[in-house]
Amino acid sequence: MLTVRKAAALLKSWDNILILTHIRPDGDTVGCAAALCAGLRALGKTAYLWPNPGLTDATRPYFAPYAAPDGFEYAKLVSVDIATENLFPDNAAPYKGHVDLAIDHHPSFEAFARENIVRPGAAACGELLYDILAALGPITPEIALPLYVAVSTDCGCFAYANTTAHTHAVAAALIRTGIDYRTVNKVFFRTKTRVRIQLEAALLREAEFYDGGRVVFMTVPLSLMESLSATEGDAEELSSLGGQIEGVDCAITARELKPGEWKISLRTGARVNATKVCQLYGGGGHAAAAGCTIEAPLDEVRRRMLSGIEQVAAG
Amino acid sequence: MLTVRKAAALLKSWDNILILTHIRPDGDTVGCAAALCAGLRALGKTAYLWPNPGLTDATRPYFAPYAAPDGFEYAKLVSVDIATENLFPDNAAPYKGHVDLAIDHHPSFEAFARENIVRPGAAACGELLYDILAALGPITPEIALPLYVAVSTDCGCFAYANTTAHTHAVAAALIRTGIDYRTVNKVFFRTKTRVRIQLEAALLREAEFYDGGRVVFMTVPLSLMESLSATEGDAEELSSLGGQIEGVDCAITARELKPGEWKISLRTGARVNATKVCQLYGGGGHAAAAGCTIEAPLDEVRRRMLSGIEQVAAG
Repeated sequence: MLTVRKAAALLKSWDNILILTHIRPDGDTVGCAAALCAGLRALGKTAYLWPNPGLTDATRPYFAPYAAPDGFEYAKLVSVDIATENLFPDNAAPYKGHVDLAIDHHPSFEAFARENIVRPGAAACGELLYDILAALGPITPEIALPLYVAVSTDCGCFAYANTTAHTHAVAAALIRTGIDYRTVNKVFFRTKTRVRIQLEAALLREAEFYDGGRVVFMTVPLSLMESLSATEGDAEELSSLGGQIEGVDCAITARELKPGEWKISLRTGARVNATKVCQLYGGGGHAAAAGCTIEAPLDEVRRRMLSGIEQVAAG
Repeated sequence: MLTVRKAAALLKSWDNILILTHIRPDGDTVGCAAALCAGLRALGKTAYLWPNPGLTDATRPYFAPYAAPDGFEYAKLVSVDIATENLFPDNAAPYKGHVDLAIDHHPSFEAFARENIVRPGAAACGELLYDILAALGPITPEIALPLYVAVSTDCGCFAYANTTAHTHAVAAALIRTGIDYRTVNKVFFRTKTRVRIQLEAALLREAEFYDGGRVVFMTVPLSLMESLSATEGDAEELSSLGGQIEGVDCAITARELKPGEWKISLRTGARVNATKVCQLYGGGGHAAAAGCTIEAPLDEVRRRMLSGIEQVAAG
């Protein structure tokens, strides 16, 4: 595993770099990719982002300026915020086994690249990338703005338990470059579409409580998404909703990706390790936030998750 | 107006200090009072907080350990986060005209004390107090925990537009003392009662949109409060909900106080001055947040507010 200095030195020695983001891209992977691209270009290098079909209205503006043109021939391949090759977007499948440097912050990181660097204690991959980019040169506003998106979105605007003193220190340094972080906060944390509001209301109305109210099970069926004409962006981070309910320490959100295939997000308190539960079903993540995909009828999905939680809670 | 150094020097020269908080106390005033008390005690001084009858379940634990016992005879009186003597709690009325040092961060601060220090650019009074306490001695965890409450609550956990690099730098320094800031975040920013969630869902479900979606009108009828057995605490700050809806720049929340009497909260963007609208109906407030009380049937309340907004928007 690389140190920050060695990762910076590698990047400094490379050129013609293509950067990969993960499937269903969030603010952290998009922000990191854009910031890394800006940082490499500031060093005079050629760098682009491999197109990701899952961008939302909120993330697209940070990605678009750096999207690779057709026919770009890369020499080095770097991934950001990707724990495993299973999380490559479909259009990046040909790159499996070919990544030169993977930069990540997930405890479940699989070190799938030729060179790897991970900081599992970081709230966002953007925190680690900040240190790498700071070792390469000055943090310009072009680097700082997407990095602020990366850091702030992955820690729920500094409210999640993964937030540390380093998270705040990085935010302070980024803001000091003069970026318009206020618009980022308004767009990502203080604006909801009307469809989003209807989605949240439906989830909360149908929420099922178990184990004396400690466990909540919420579903986002395809039929709900379709009836509201909801987009990917509308459904982002719905998994944080259940954990906000007083008394809940295990919030399961099951989203139907296609008929009979459910993407599970699990948010937990100290009592239950979310990764241990999701690993039972081939997933992974962090101690307090993990995920997996289950192909089964909804009743079976519910049964597996509830029994998985029981099993892990029992130690 | 004092500098940070002079305010620190004054406090260092005093003893037997009584600290005042404002009416309807929030996290900033309570957190500042507790932190200042802890800081003064760390210097070997005697210091207490004047009891405030408006504490909530969330703020009480930070205030209670420092509440003044009956008969405490103070030599110096200090107020924190109080812009004007009109905001003294009723039980502090006798102290009007007698405050020795006022520490505040409101642009409308009236410098009502013998000595005054204000930093209008600070998101929280806690940011200014951090600098003062840091000039007095090491920031202990006993000081840092309530200060974190002060800073984080007044900037909406670093999401509001008043958040600056200094806000984050202070948060980083406080967290480094080893405090349990995660519990603060959970209690203040990531916990909603089930009743609160049902209230929000009902408001959003029944929301009425006008003027192409720029104006939203939401109601909290007595019947809704009663059917959910909702408390005052459950209904707190419901008025901030409407302003989060994409495209909305005028959010009206009408809460029925008693049959036929509606308390109106109006939150606005730059297009409409909220105070000008509410003044039409005998109310007042700030440019972006104002209120009034209207005694009329709901249809008439709606009509007046919509026409008031139209009138003020037309200039």
